[in-house]
Amino acid sequence: MNSVSDTPKDTLNISIVGSGNVATHLAKAFSGKASVSLVNPHTLEGLPEKSELVIISVKDDAIKEVAAKLKGRAEIVAHTSGSVAMSALEGCAQHIGVFYPLQTFSKNVSLNYKEIPFFIEGSDDTSIRVLTSAARLISEHVMPADSAIRKKLHIAAVFACNFTNSLAGIADELLQEDGLDYKVMLPLLRQTVDKLSSLSPAEAQTGPAVRGDKTVMDAHLKMLEGNDTLSEIYRTLSARISSVATCKTAQ
Amino acid sequence: MNSVSDTPKDTLNISIVGSGNVATHLAKAFSGKASVSLVNPHTLEGLPEKSELVIISVKDDAIKEVAAKLKGRAEIVAHTSGSVAMSALEGCAQHIGVFYPLQTFSKNVSLNYKEIPFFIEGSDDTSIRVLTSAARLISEHVMPADSAIRKKLHIAAVFACNFTNSLAGIADELLQEDGLDYKVMLPLLRQTVDKLSSLSPAEAQTGPAVRGDKTVMDAHLKMLEGNDTLSEIYRTLSARISSVATCKTAQ
Repeated sequence: MNSVSDTPKDTLNISIVGSGNVATHLAKAFSGKASVSLVNPHTLEGLPEKSELVIISVKDDAIKEVAAKLKGRAEIVAHTSGSVAMSALEGCAQHIGVFYPLQTFSKNVSLNYKEIPFFIEGSDDTSIRVLTSAARLISEHVMPADSAIRKKLHIAAVFACNFTNSLAGIADELLQEDGLDYKVMLPLLRQTVDKLSSLSPAEAQTGPAVRGDKTVMDAHLKMLEGNDTLSEIYRTLSARISSVATCKTAQ
Repeated sequence: MNSVSDTPKDTLNISIVGSGNVATHLAKAFSGKASVSLVNPHTLEGLPEKSELVIISVKDDAIKEVAAKLKGRAEIVAHTSGSVAMSALEGCAQHIGVFYPLQTFSKNVSLNYKEIPFFIEGSDDTSIRVLTSAARLISEHVMPADSAIRKKLHIAAVFACNFTNSLAGIADELLQEDGLDYKVMLPLLRQTVDKLSSLSPAEAQTGPAVRGDKTVMDAHLKMLEGNDTLSEIYRTLSARISSVATCKTAQ
């Protein structure tokens, strides 16, 4: 007898419904670790007769519709959205839950899945247990989070990831005006993030706003004259940095 | 005879005037590669009788004052500021220049100096040659940049680095409300930056604003109600992301 046999009986049977970046990456991450099917969200082509776990990974406003079509096809149904409550899945399976990876997924960009934090919510012990086991197949960082906490994580991720990418886009726009490549900024960007492993964001803050260097800030705003969007972003974020620095000093 | 001898004659004699993060890091980076002195910016204690190269690394508004005190003490005087024109050093030495590292320096946070881009400006061939040689002792990325280009690099760095750190601070603030540690965001932040090695910022953009997901954005703004600063930052950056996405689609 082989005690570590990899028979179908021991292998979790997971269907991932979706065709976007998250679905594609999840299927890849589970590959070789579970019996995984990638299922077309419109036709449900590829869905086994009965799945242990179906993970719906589609746009937020399509989750309910896909869930309705899955009724009776799976023991456990979960979605991967940061913003949608678990209750959106009510009625589509006996056990429901959420399987939320805190990460930004782009096609053709590889990821170290082990480092991705997964946040799990479940309607009962069964869904929590199976979703946690599934997440642990991929990642070393699996935590519980109810819908309220997940929403908070999601909005924090919008600030820390989506908006950070937008700032890199602004740097790109400014540098392109002088024929410079934004890639010259990458070591600086890497260091900006690396510092946050050992310093808090307040401790790590550098630049004219935290120094209260009005001369430099005025010169920058002069450079941005005529571009209302960038001027407003510069003003708002500088004011936020100044006010945090002032609070820190006042403590 | 030893053709690669490391006699004092071959070693560049560099004095760094300053006591802040940049001065401290530069002295460390040159250590073992040049004959380097760290000089007190107020008393000039530690300044050799005659230096080949003096690098002034003090706050922008103190550069002129320090430069005046250095008159006759060095062959070449340069500063490290992104925002101050080279002309601020006029009259303090025969050869003047700028030695601008595009990086964020914090005390007690180590750096891979080789990866830091250095931008060099000089008043003549001598200063350009010596400053370039000095930068090459530290870094593999040494480029010329006049004062106008350097100002552009500096404002781009404020967006890409200082404002990114501020966004991490906002994520921290939001997560702390629920007792969560912002370090849970670090894999996401690392990936946000890593993606920019292979995708442009426009290609790498993810999140509700680029998807035009008004439901999620409205829910986020509701969560931010009562916090005018964060609401305004959310609105402004989302609008910027949407407008870039619309331009891209329209092309």
